[in-house]
Amino acid sequence: MNRDEDGLPDPRLTGLTAGFVAEVRSRLDDGDVDRIRDLAEPLGHADLADLLESLDTRERGRLVQAIRGTFDPTVLTELDDSVRLEVVEQFDTVELAAAIANLESDDALYLIETLDDVHRIAVMQAMPAAFRAILEQGLAYPESSAGRLMQRDVVAVPGFWTVGETIDFLRRSQGLPDDFYDLFVVDPAHRPIGTVPTSRVLRNPRETRIADIMEDRGLGVPADMDQEQVADIFRRNDLVSVPVVDAAGRLVGAITVDDIVDVIDEEAEEDLLGLARTGERDIYASPLRTARRRQSWLLITLVNTILASIVISRFEGAIQEIVALAVLMPIVAAMGGNAGMQVITVMVRALAARDLVAGGTWRVIGKEVVVGVMNGLVFATVMGTIATLWFGDLSLGLVLASAMMFNMVWAGLAGTVIPLTLDRFDIDPAVAAGPFLTTTTDVLGFFVFLGLASTFLL
Amino acid sequence: MNRDEDGLPDPRLTGLTAGFVAEVRSRLDDGDVDRIRDLAEPLGHADLADLLESLDTRERGRLVQAIRGTFDPTVLTELDDSVRLEVVEQFDTVELAAAIANLESDDALYLIETLDDVHRIAVMQAMPAAFRAILEQGLAYPESSAGRLMQRDVVAVPGFWTVGETIDFLRRSQGLPDDFYDLFVVDPAHRPIGTVPTSRVLRNPRETRIADIMEDRGLGVPADMDQEQVADIFRRNDLVSVPVVDAAGRLVGAITVDDIVDVIDEEAEEDLLGLARTGERDIYASPLRTARRRQSWLLITLVNTILASIVISRFEGAIQEIVALAVLMPIVAAMGGNAGMQVITVMVRALAARDLVAGGTWRVIGKEVVVGVMNGLVFATVMGTIATLWFGDLSLGLVLASAMMFNMVWAGLAGTVIPLTLDRFDIDPAVAAGPFLTTTTDVLGFFVFLGLASTFLL
Repeated sequence: MNRDEDGLPDPRLTGLTAGFVAEVRSRLDDGDVDRIRDLAEPLGHADLADLLESLDTRERGRLVQAIRGTFDPTVLTELDDSVRLEVVEQFDTVELAAAIANLESDDALYLIETLDDVHRIAVMQAMPAAFRAILEQGLAYPESSAGRLMQRDVVAVPGFWTVGETIDFLRRSQGLPDDFYDLFVVDPAHRPIGTVPTSRVLRNPRETRIADIMEDRGLGVPADMDQEQVADIFRRNDLVSVPVVDAAGRLVGAITVDDIVDVIDEEAEEDLLGLARTGERDIYASPLRTARRRQSWLLITLVNTILASIVISRFEGAIQEIVALAVLMPIVAAMGGNAGMQVITVMVRALAARDLVAGGTWRVIGKEVVVGVMNGLVFATVMGTIATLWFGDLSLGLVLASAMMFNMVWAGLAGTVIPLTLDRFDIDPAVAAGPFLTTTTDVLGFFVFLGLASTFLL
Repeated sequence: MNRDEDGLPDPRLTGLTAGFVAEVRSRLDDGDVDRIRDLAEPLGHADLADLLESLDTRERGRLVQAIRGTFDPTVLTELDDSVRLEVVEQFDTVELAAAIANLESDDALYLIETLDDVHRIAVMQAMPAAFRAILEQGLAYPESSAGRLMQRDVVAVPGFWTVGETIDFLRRSQGLPDDFYDLFVVDPAHRPIGTVPTSRVLRNPRETRIADIMEDRGLGVPADMDQEQVADIFRRNDLVSVPVVDAAGRLVGAITVDDIVDVIDEEAEEDLLGLARTGERDIYASPLRTARRRQSWLLITLVNTILASIVISRFEGAIQEIVALAVLMPIVAAMGGNAGMQVITVMVRALAARDLVAGGTWRVIGKEVVVGVMNGLVFATVMGTIATLWFGDLSLGLVLASAMMFNMVWAGLAGTVIPLTLDRFDIDPAVAAGPFLTTTTDVLGFFVFLGLASTFLL
């Protein structure tokens, strides 16, 4: 049932398989336009975007030509920048403007945002004035705000209506969203006072009053709220949609959970890429662009290690006398750095998920220091013993153990305090905490180890 | 509007604020049970869970006693293990079993899964036999499968029904899910042949045939499909719910997007924690437990750095003669390690998001090697020059530059090939790729740098 007549698996379930892509490629070579359309037709826009990305420029051009009649511009929002530009170039402005004006307002807005300046301005000009006005209003909200995410067409009914009146109204009305999952109940000032899932309207007798089956009383997110916070509200309250209100509390739109899934994905991606210090999310970007994007973070690594090298160079005499110090010193830095990154990751995640409730801060700092002491004892003992046996020198083992102990406790302290401090100053800890931390664990690790060695072993 | 009469902000919007938690705490001290109930009543279960976690054991006990009459057991699913056990202990088995039997089947199943063995068995015994049978059927599906996520009560109607017949049926029927967003259209063998959003039933005249307004024809995910793959299907097809089918293709349940939001969160968390090599997600776990969980990864770091130390020790003679080698060697390893981790993160993300479509593998490997050459050239030049000036030795600068160049190209190659290979063998690259990679960049980095130095500088 999930296979089409040619035996290819349903791309909605599997995503694009190698077999499917190969089939499309060979048809593009043949120029078998009908078959190409048949293959592309059942694809969701994310899959079609993947397909476009996996083709080369010439193939991509042919595919777009084959399906341009039915091309859903939402696909553009899923494309990497470089590929999007190529595809957009194949449509003329009027065609693109007409297609976008057919989308729901949130999708249209999102798409307009992803276009480069030149195309955006041209497309906006070519649109019906009314739709352009709606987009311009949307663009007036801050980037990544609820106002940008929301869809403006919502179903709002007064609470004194009955189920029957509501159904009659819905059957009659034009200009409602295509599909919707909740109705919003509003007061005479158009302020949301409750939400009714559509299924309740279906299941209740015609004479039931809407106000009697509504829930989420008086919930409404301000249009200028940041999208991450909106996502958090969906998560914490298990919502399917939420009304958006203006400064006066009036209903101006609604956000649905499918948009929130994208926000959550984006957020997770940002944290992940931030922690690994790579600004890059586009695996299909040119090598030169990727290389450039990564350089700033590599430069920070370089400065960090040069600082560490300067510390080491202060102890050249000690190293010359006891060359074992050079052999063992990377261990102190690496263990501190890794232990610290574990703490930072947990903290970044806790801050992102808002797990760290008020008053929990000191408890978490204290806990991580204790964890540092515990693991410091374990690994200092293990590595101190190994070093003693390896170099036949108990004092060297003790110095190594002390330095490791110090650095792992430091990792627990710095691993909590650095992200919390950055967060307090509204700097994204996912991105900035790692470099800060490893600089301290490297510099302090080398300094304490080589310093103790100079003092006690020479 | 979003403030209650006491001026506290709406916790549904803000999550728990410090002021709110302080207010609850002081009422718990006073024993003002009515006020505590008023404060707790509007909280969603995620917020109530956060509140329980932020209290100490004594306060937690009092809060549970105050609200036990209306306690929603779904809250338990949001608690960290240690806190959950404490709360569960405060209910007797019969009470807990009755509360769980009132939940929808997917929530009940999820909750039962989170209980420890002792409580799970006791609670299952205390349940009505019919509900126990449903849970047992659910537990028979593999962990993290669609069968575990799905809700068994779904609305299924034949395609030849009209909108009017469907509404009449819904008004009449008992045992339907509380709220639902899609109806499933089934054929005589109970196989799903399409999906109808509830809003379409509301908006169309009574005489419209259901088959004429359905979409997503024939889409159904197998009950044993992994939840990550199900999440991917939701994302790619922008679904709100999806029918789940058994091996014969018959409709057995449905998964809704709110459960998928949790799966996406879990997935992102796993990738993030995996990359940072910490198995920990529970910031409130005891220090001993946290310390233990992190030890396995720190042990891997230790083994990795010991291997690197062994390589260094082979070159003790060279270091003794040119102590600048000890000063510079951490730079080679750190730059290779960081460049490689950037590549691995992008790869892990691409594999998780299934961005890496068929045939793209070689292209990505090639690209990352080119990026390695580009950034290798940049940083080898910079650092080679710095080393030359610092130690007044051009040969030393050239040796450092060559080693850095080698290690950064290696990082591009290993950073792509290692995660792809692990993925091929079904090993999670988020967790395993990092240690593999940094071992190679450390060991090879030191070996090439010190080896070149011994050959050309001594």
